[in-house]
Amino acid sequence: MTRRLKTVQDVGEFPLIERLKTLCGSSASVVCGIGDDCAVVQPPRGRLLLFKTDMVVEHVHFTRRSAPEQVGHKAMGRPLSDIAAMAGEARCAVVAIAMPARTSIRYVDGLYRGMHECAAMFGVDIVGGDTSRASQIMMTVSVLGNVTRARCVYRSGAKPGDGIYVTGVLGGTILRKHVSFVPRIKESQWLAHHVRPSAMIDISDGFVQDIGHILEASGVGAEIDVATIPISQDASRCAGGNANKALHSALYDGEDFELLFTVPREREKRLAQWSCAWSIPCTRVGTITEDKKLRDTKGHVIPQKGYVHFLCG
Amino acid sequence: MTRRLKTVQDVGEFPLIERLKTLCGSSASVVCGIGDDCAVVQPPRGRLLLFKTDMVVEHVHFTRRSAPEQVGHKAMGRPLSDIAAMAGEARCAVVAIAMPARTSIRYVDGLYRGMHECAAMFGVDIVGGDTSRASQIMMTVSVLGNVTRARCVYRSGAKPGDGIYVTGVLGGTILRKHVSFVPRIKESQWLAHHVRPSAMIDISDGFVQDIGHILEASGVGAEIDVATIPISQDASRCAGGNANKALHSALYDGEDFELLFTVPREREKRLAQWSCAWSIPCTRVGTITEDKKLRDTKGHVIPQKGYVHFLCG
Repeated sequence: MTRRLKTVQDVGEFPLIERLKTLCGSSASVVCGIGDDCAVVQPPRGRLLLFKTDMVVEHVHFTRRSAPEQVGHKAMGRPLSDIAAMAGEARCAVVAIAMPARTSIRYVDGLYRGMHECAAMFGVDIVGGDTSRASQIMMTVSVLGNVTRARCVYRSGAKPGDGIYVTGVLGGTILRKHVSFVPRIKESQWLAHHVRPSAMIDISDGFVQDIGHILEASGVGAEIDVATIPISQDASRCAGGNANKALHSALYDGEDFELLFTVPREREKRLAQWSCAWSIPCTRVGTITEDKKLRDTKGHVIPQKGYVHFLCG
Repeated sequence: MTRRLKTVQDVGEFPLIERLKTLCGSSASVVCGIGDDCAVVQPPRGRLLLFKTDMVVEHVHFTRRSAPEQVGHKAMGRPLSDIAAMAGEARCAVVAIAMPARTSIRYVDGLYRGMHECAAMFGVDIVGGDTSRASQIMMTVSVLGNVTRARCVYRSGAKPGDGIYVTGVLGGTILRKHVSFVPRIKESQWLAHHVRPSAMIDISDGFVQDIGHILEASGVGAEIDVATIPISQDASRCAGGNANKALHSALYDGEDFELLFTVPREREKRLAQWSCAWSIPCTRVGTITEDKKLRDTKGHVIPQKGYVHFLCG
């Protein structure tokens, strides 16, 4: 005899919210968390606010093959990765979740556990949310962070001659990393303090497309030494050992959530300390140029294609 | 010959985002709006931050029978109504939208126009967003606002003897008001300045359920004079002239988005100025009591039932 799992419909909205509250902690800067009309938080002193929203949708960003904890981790990790891309600190988050009424409570608990664990790694409080039914699971996490004006790193600051760097290794993210990546918040703060990148982005659409965003915002081009692109073992595995395919995966796969940044030549030597501070690699992969094109070292234009929503809808 | 309408799929993600950007203005306090990894905004000086997320889902909160401008208005209006319930000012918003790839561009433009117009009424900038495909349209609007510590009104401040008030008229919201309500941000700021309510909430789940939230948070009860409940013409119309049915609609329908608040006896006289400032009514409907029950003037308990998600999923 199989015991039927309790569903969201069995529990109802308000008891569900009560249940989810217990999975969310709260720190001193939160004046009022879940339970009033809005969350109330202390503003950061002398800092700019960072504000970001990101969505994960079933069948688009995840399937039920991933554990709910991983899906929750991804939902929280994506906007945190954007906070990292500005060299900011994340502070608090609100979560909107829509799901079928037949969704099991065990699954929903898993989603929240995943979100909470990811948030807690960076001292982020979940301070509010909204629930609704829908035909597929959908979570929107909106994050509030902050950064000092001097440390904030935009996409638009790259200059000809700057070195181009990536953290970690790229590609093959569909195997595991798209639901298990660690937002590079700590690394990006280290970079802002020690190296002061001139431009930064997180790789969500794929290396080529995301460097394209920096080039466009900065009005520059880049020469990439593709032989130096750090290829992940998962990219090689996905490619069945074919080195060209693995490189393609590293260049074009989305959801690496690594940092891609540029550093003025006079500050590049400061990156020598990177390996003392971090166990993941940081690799120089090219140089910013004047001609507004993305080229390899032979001068060939690297084509812009990556993951774009709606094309396969 | 019918001309096929252009769809989201025809246009693609990045051109769509470029298009939506043009529908969103930006004010001086926005350091960096749409187009970088996060929005960057100036923090308010000497104020607490308010943070709220709210979702509208097709077939749950709206259907295609409503114009897209109305749906967009509702998506933006709901979290703004929550900012009003804390007596706050709204500042900026981020929008996550998921929709089928076959959605017409004309419909999406309408959604954004509705959101933008509602936001602009209150000086709110749309500073960022996320798009994805999904099998049904779903929008999450997250709003950042602020309030001075002294003015912030929670649900938990009601005391025995306080008068209970509602703005506007209630019920029959399904006819029109659920997609055309005006968030009571201006009225609530007036209240916070002139009257200082002891507790406040916006009516989204229905009068009875929402006063229940105040009673629970404040640890009090209430006596409601149901004969004084301001019933809307739409409630009477929905009820086909049946007065009891119309009252039921005013007590239990959700999505009025009016303010429900309590005022200590010594400050109640300040509400005499209400009608000089506002054209909508403000009605005294009862008194806070000690016994933690919601009763009518004959001492009968008013049953708690209103709209709850998932029960009809």
